[in-house]
Amino acid sequence: MPSDQPLIISSVTALRTHLAGIRDQGSRIAFVPTMGNLHQGHLDLVTHAGVIADHTVVSIFVNPMQFGPNEDFDAYPRTLDADAEALSGSACQVIFAPTVREMYPHGVNTEIDVPGLSTILCGHHRPGHFKGVATVVAKLLNIVQPDVAVFGNKDYQQLKVIQTVATDLLLPITIVGVDTTREPSGLAMSSRNAYLTADERVLAANLYQSLQTLADAVRRGQSVSSKLREERARLTALGFILDYLEIRDANDLTQSALEADTVVILVAAKLGQARLIDNVVVQTQ
Amino acid sequence: MPSDQPLIISSVTALRTHLAGIRDQGSRIAFVPTMGNLHQGHLDLVTHAGVIADHTVVSIFVNPMQFGPNEDFDAYPRTLDADAEALSGSACQVIFAPTVREMYPHGVNTEIDVPGLSTILCGHHRPGHFKGVATVVAKLLNIVQPDVAVFGNKDYQQLKVIQTVATDLLLPITIVGVDTTREPSGLAMSSRNAYLTADERVLAANLYQSLQTLADAVRRGQSVSSKLREERARLTALGFILDYLEIRDANDLTQSALEADTVVILVAAKLGQARLIDNVVVQTQ
Repeated sequence: MPSDQPLIISSVTALRTHLAGIRDQGSRIAFVPTMGNLHQGHLDLVTHAGVIADHTVVSIFVNPMQFGPNEDFDAYPRTLDADAEALSGSACQVIFAPTVREMYPHGVNTEIDVPGLSTILCGHHRPGHFKGVATVVAKLLNIVQPDVAVFGNKDYQQLKVIQTVATDLLLPITIVGVDTTREPSGLAMSSRNAYLTADERVLAANLYQSLQTLADAVRRGQSVSSKLREERARLTALGFILDYLEIRDANDLTQSALEADTVVILVAAKLGQARLIDNVVVQTQ
Repeated sequence: MPSDQPLIISSVTALRTHLAGIRDQGSRIAFVPTMGNLHQGHLDLVTHAGVIADHTVVSIFVNPMQFGPNEDFDAYPRTLDADAEALSGSACQVIFAPTVREMYPHGVNTEIDVPGLSTILCGHHRPGHFKGVATVVAKLLNIVQPDVAVFGNKDYQQLKVIQTVATDLLLPITIVGVDTTREPSGLAMSSRNAYLTADERVLAANLYQSLQTLADAVRRGQSVSSKLREERARLTALGFILDYLEIRDANDLTQSALEADTVVILVAAKLGQARLIDNVVVQTQ
């Protein structure tokens, strides 16, 4: 096995033993939690992790607790071999790929929740989702005990939930968000893009176009309420089933975006078999 | 200041800096979380901690999140000077005494809960109590990062909640329960005993007598349902307002105590201004 091939570890105990040795050498550890089915966006997170730390752990775990009963837990692509191949030669030294039984040996008894953040936007459309995310990420952070954990800005609300959990629970871990990686069309890279047909994939770029249009309006200090209505209507006419297209305070996702120095424009929409999300962060005038 | 006087630290950052130095020396750290107003029961926890670790941290923090709106948060006795005095010469090297602001700088946004355990028994009578306990203990454990944390068996349901959180969240910390310290009368030591009049304090010993009567019946393999009814009636006749007197599976506090190898007999009752709890763990025949 070439030395640039990451080690694959599936047990919590084995990972802890490995990382204790790494830590004893004084190495700074970065952690990139993923659900696998890795694309360039994930690899960009790993590259970022490699720049800010000495040893990078990538977890691959499709977490049942964050999927609703009618969501795509079963269909979610599991591609461990291809993922390991994609990570070979990257900054990733260790892939942590536990089973559901390893992560939830006693089922789900303990829940972590951020009630204010977890029931709005995607949380409103995916009840229990962020409770599942917060709980599994806390578990993973407790297993890996990294110095820094790296997440994609694409999942903006998720990043806010995790930052809140880490701050409130006083985890001694820095949470870092990394810019969204996009296709040339502007479409945000996502494992769920695999659910799109070729035609839908072309159409999907309109989400980012709407975000850009709204970002321009915000930057110019224009009134955005009519623009929001226009873009919602445009996306709906194109065939998207919109969950939301909103402008929020970038800090806490409250609706008081008008007074915020920084806002985030967020969209979630179904297109065919895929539920897509995207966002852009903009400084207000 | 004599060397057996514990250091008092009130900031998270200062405590972490202190403990990093201790950890670098290879010392094993024990942690005893308390709400202060220390009595012999607490000191016995500290003695136990001193036996199993090299460096013992005692926290003193009256946690608002675990008090209900009509409970005794304001009245709860704060006696830091006396507590520091009581700990001088003990195994405690550091007292961590943070303010509410230090522990909840952004208020309560993140909650940790164990829904199954936290809504029964005391949780039924004190809604939100165990969510507050689980959250603050997780925060304290993340601050101190001890090897072992020591709790009193007197708060049996609390111990089960904390063990569940530590196990489920994969905290690399051993949770230890220590036997209840009792007055010569059998009354379990508790800060809330201070709310009792002299007459009530004498009467309060009947709680432990009821637990003993029921424990004897369990040990003898006798049917306990009539005994439970008798003891409930006896305590009520004595002036206790019973929240519950129950026999439960000692492992998970479910009602299936009849099949359990080990049961716990738990009581919670109001007497005058005090709400008292106690329990005994018994092997079944």
